[in-house]
Amino acid sequence: MKKKKGILFIISAPSGSGKTTLCTRLVELVDSLYRSISMTTRPPRPGEKDGTDYIFIEKPEFMKRLARKEFLEWAKVFGEYYATPKKHILHMLKRGSDVLLSIDVQGAMKIKRLKLDAVYIFILPPSLDMLRERLVNRSTDSREAIKKRLEIARQEIARSDKYDYIVVNNRLESALDSLRAIIVAERCRVKRDR
Amino acid sequence: MKKKKGILFIISAPSGSGKTTLCTRLVELVDSLYRSISMTTRPPRPGEKDGTDYIFIEKPEFMKRLARKEFLEWAKVFGEYYATPKKHILHMLKRGSDVLLSIDVQGAMKIKRLKLDAVYIFILPPSLDMLRERLVNRSTDSREAIKKRLEIARQEIARSDKYDYIVVNNRLESALDSLRAIIVAERCRVKRDR
Repeated sequence: MKKKKGILFIISAPSGSGKTTLCTRLVELVDSLYRSISMTTRPPRPGEKDGTDYIFIEKPEFMKRLARKEFLEWAKVFGEYYATPKKHILHMLKRGSDVLLSIDVQGAMKIKRLKLDAVYIFILPPSLDMLRERLVNRSTDSREAIKKRLEIARQEIARSDKYDYIVVNNRLESALDSLRAIIVAERCRVKRDR
Repeated sequence: MKKKKGILFIISAPSGSGKTTLCTRLVELVDSLYRSISMTTRPPRPGEKDGTDYIFIEKPEFMKRLARKEFLEWAKVFGEYYATPKKHILHMLKRGSDVLLSIDVQGAMKIKRLKLDAVYIFILPPSLDMLRERLVNRSTDSREAIKKRLEIARQEIARSDKYDYIVVNNRLESALDSLRAIIVAERCRVKRDR
């Protein structure tokens, strides 16, 4: 029984948990689910595409949009700005589409305070060791940055109990199946009283 | 993230909604999910097997077990007794297995008062007309009994908002997928605070 209004699915995961791959596969797999693309002032990493991974914008443009209150939430991380554009999400939810928003724990907790009808999912890496390994293999970060990311990961994992669901990304296919199940199940829910 | 204790999944549906087929298929499909078999004093219908569809027992035996408080709940419907045996369910939940219990709305609401950690799923027939058709085709009931069943169905559907999930049984495969999704999703839930 599909609700008239769409459901906002918010996914957080420590960086290196495989979140991006999972989210990309998930919207391919599930009908009527659309990704919300975040905006950032940070430069694209190798392979990242503007409008797919992020909407990449310059700082002055970001500040203008911030002043116009165009963001659902925003944050400054490692000196760069990140934000969730508001209008597109609210429009999609209103017309009954479900929206997938991939965002860090800090951002997710900010959105939680807005009391939107949202479902919060945390993707847990199998272990911190495996997370370190993935970050090293990705080799986009310096040793110092990896250390910082792991410390943030530790803090984020400690707050995973604020989420509705925890999905362990042991094997990609199994994690993907759990994520799909959560969306299908939530569409059958009688009410979400959070 | 599997909880240490098992989850009790309670499924209700108006008779003729395809509940039995769905439950049978569901336990085949999902790992670590076991059906709880209800007891009844009513005679088996053609094709029903003792110990699979119901545990069929005589009235005096039923009364003895009732006196020994062996039931989680019980009810008298159309002059026959139905009950949910307690011991087996609690044992399975304790050892971490999930249990599927198929039960009518009245019974489900009785179990709800016990404040067990349970998930309530209502299977909705596509329409009352289709339900009538299925009951007529099943041809195990008299016209009078069918009329009574439809009236009960109407009352049961009115109480479906007391459930956590509603699954419409339009097409069997799609309903089965939704049921499976609910179980997979609930196993990822951080907490159930109902």
